[in-house]
Amino acid sequence: MNAVSDIANITGAVDEARLGTLVGDLAAFGARPDGGVDRQALTPEDFKSRRFLVDLARSYGAQAYRDSIGNLFFRRPGQDADAAPVVTGSHADSQPTGGRLDGAYGVCAGLEVLAALADSGVAHRRPIEVAVWTNEEGCRFAPGSMGASAFTEPSLLDGFLATADTTGRTVGEELAEADPLFADVPLRPLGTPVHAFVETHIEQGPVMADAGVTIGVVRGIQGTRWYEITVDGIAAHAGSTPRANRQDALRAATEIATGVYAAFDAGDERLRMTIGRLTVGPGSVNVVPEQVRMTVDVRHPEEAVLDAVEERLRELTAAHAGRARLERTMAMPPTGFDGRIRDTVREAARDLKLSAMEIDSGAFHDSLHLARHCPTGMIFVPSVDGLSHNPAEHTALSDLAAGTRVLAASLIRLAQN
Amino acid sequence: MNAVSDIANITGAVDEARLGTLVGDLAAFGARPDGGVDRQALTPEDFKSRRFLVDLARSYGAQAYRDSIGNLFFRRPGQDADAAPVVTGSHADSQPTGGRLDGAYGVCAGLEVLAALADSGVAHRRPIEVAVWTNEEGCRFAPGSMGASAFTEPSLLDGFLATADTTGRTVGEELAEADPLFADVPLRPLGTPVHAFVETHIEQGPVMADAGVTIGVVRGIQGTRWYEITVDGIAAHAGSTPRANRQDALRAATEIATGVYAAFDAGDERLRMTIGRLTVGPGSVNVVPEQVRMTVDVRHPEEAVLDAVEERLRELTAAHAGRARLERTMAMPPTGFDGRIRDTVREAARDLKLSAMEIDSGAFHDSLHLARHCPTGMIFVPSVDGLSHNPAEHTALSDLAAGTRVLAASLIRLAQN
Repeated sequence: MNAVSDIANITGAVDEARLGTLVGDLAAFGARPDGGVDRQALTPEDFKSRRFLVDLARSYGAQAYRDSIGNLFFRRPGQDADAAPVVTGSHADSQPTGGRLDGAYGVCAGLEVLAALADSGVAHRRPIEVAVWTNEEGCRFAPGSMGASAFTEPSLLDGFLATADTTGRTVGEELAEADPLFADVPLRPLGTPVHAFVETHIEQGPVMADAGVTIGVVRGIQGTRWYEITVDGIAAHAGSTPRANRQDALRAATEIATGVYAAFDAGDERLRMTIGRLTVGPGSVNVVPEQVRMTVDVRHPEEAVLDAVEERLRELTAAHAGRARLERTMAMPPTGFDGRIRDTVREAARDLKLSAMEIDSGAFHDSLHLARHCPTGMIFVPSVDGLSHNPAEHTALSDLAAGTRVLAASLIRLAQN
Repeated sequence: MNAVSDIANITGAVDEARLGTLVGDLAAFGARPDGGVDRQALTPEDFKSRRFLVDLARSYGAQAYRDSIGNLFFRRPGQDADAAPVVTGSHADSQPTGGRLDGAYGVCAGLEVLAALADSGVAHRRPIEVAVWTNEEGCRFAPGSMGASAFTEPSLLDGFLATADTTGRTVGEELAEADPLFADVPLRPLGTPVHAFVETHIEQGPVMADAGVTIGVVRGIQGTRWYEITVDGIAAHAGSTPRANRQDALRAATEIATGVYAAFDAGDERLRMTIGRLTVGPGSVNVVPEQVRMTVDVRHPEEAVLDAVEERLRELTAAHAGRARLERTMAMPPTGFDGRIRDTVREAARDLKLSAMEIDSGAFHDSLHLARHCPTGMIFVPSVDGLSHNPAEHTALSDLAAGTRVLAASLIRLAQN
């Protein structure tokens, strides 16, 4: 077996047209009139799309498995039946106002690799699997990435199964109700060994499109911290309360927000700071605001920078001592991806003569959890205008195919070890 | 008849304890568990309170009338039966989170004057009437001051009767349904001649309490303009969108708000500027804001100042050309009260040895509309902590009685002319 020709064979067998058809077929489940997709986790549309994927994977000669959180695995056996598999994949659920690619692209790319493997007959020592992780988006059932996190940390399962949506339906109830639809798909335990995990995904930001680069070698996922700042004032009549008698919560909040934006400007290119939500109480045109609550989303690949920004936020709220308070509501440390996987992806792009750049992921992904379980990496392709979680989400088909070829080459390299 | 002794007799007959009892009795209609009042216009509680007031006024020898918008008039005849009456009064409806005094005090003060007139037997040339104006607050049926404005501008009546609350009930339906309760109260036309109108009211601001003054001689009602500023941005992922690629609507709105507060600081003591409502779309912690809408409430007694502030608001939005726009949603010009009424009130306070100050009203009142119909003025008493539209609204009973004595003296002076 010649590794170089194997890689040429498998990447040559990736079929851009077939990939485009699959993306379109998958987008038909939960299609929105505006061209987007509404396929929230564990809805009938989500289950129907999973059944479609099971049948498609089998048509490429793969074995289908599932686990107790509803993750699917499409396995192409390797020459060494007992070796831990090399796994790719992503999620098939979407936001209610989702596009055709967020998550779905990573699943479609994996299936296209299975098709190309079937067509080319390229052999590999380790099994290659495509995973479809349950409920990455977290919009119907919070938190997101339930499938990937329960897989890597099975003790989370019971809590996830009991999680209800706003109508009171639980994850466990939905999975049980859909069980007959997957009766022919054998169950596997959570947390099975994985040799390596590689996920393809759209960037969901404008960086690669702006740079004119096709392949993103993802360094890792930024650390994220969420804060809520509450500012108290005293409600008063807008007409009868002089300036000196006011304790205007929105005025104080505006000063704090100005400081937040200044801290954003003072940071490096990789810093992200967003005040996404701001509510004013009582919120009446002629009442001086009594309370403001606002969120701050801070991201950076370095924990030390996140610490420094948090210190600055504390100073900004302390400047309104007794009236403003800062609460950290979430902290997700930065995740660095495995150096060997990154090298593999970079070399695959180079061999395929594709432009590539190192990039940090600003969004969360299933890979964030897999990275705690096995060597993990991600391949990004550009998002037109950086749009995502939006029906207008788009990536050129040629870029989707390029990412799939890099994935195919990377999986084969990893599966030969 | 000796005018000086008449005034001494009538002010001497004002009974602080009786006034306090009446304020408490009226507050029982729609009483809230927190001590406040929820007696929104044309609700059963509002009608019950009006019936109570009719019966009380008759017990003081007054004649009761009503008109087609539901205003009530309690008339004590004068020696000259055909002379236009001197009228006092205010409104009996409240905000849902109202206190015991906003509006109610002006009605109670008028009734206490009727009681004092009955007790003292002081005669007066002109009739003296106490008006209870319908729906001043405007919280259930917009706009406010329906009763006073339909009285002074009867062409508004049909539109007001057709106005519905959020459940679809109209003003006309409520008045018709309550009609049997007032079958014994004769109807009078709208817009009858009034010689002079004097309204007592709590200040609803902290100025008099801060100054330690008992009587406010109200110069007029500030002009008010309402604006809505809309700022557009582009929704984007908080994690994956670099600073340079953002068009953050809240960041631009924060810059505009900072300019609004600076303009407020640069104005004179009488300027009021309030950003009372600010909403962020989509308002998600991890999405860069797409749109902000915020209101600006601007008040000043001089039209030229309002014009200058509006020009400044235009400059602030123009600095974000194409992304921010300013819309004026309401303009109420300043209203100056009649000089003769102000003199009468000031002299009454002086004769009673009460501290007094000139003050502008920052809030709207029924008097704003009466001022278009007849010579009009207002008497303010202090609001503890400036609170109003709040269950904790409070004024010392001694101040309520002092305002009632000034009212009694003013009404007698005006009714002798």
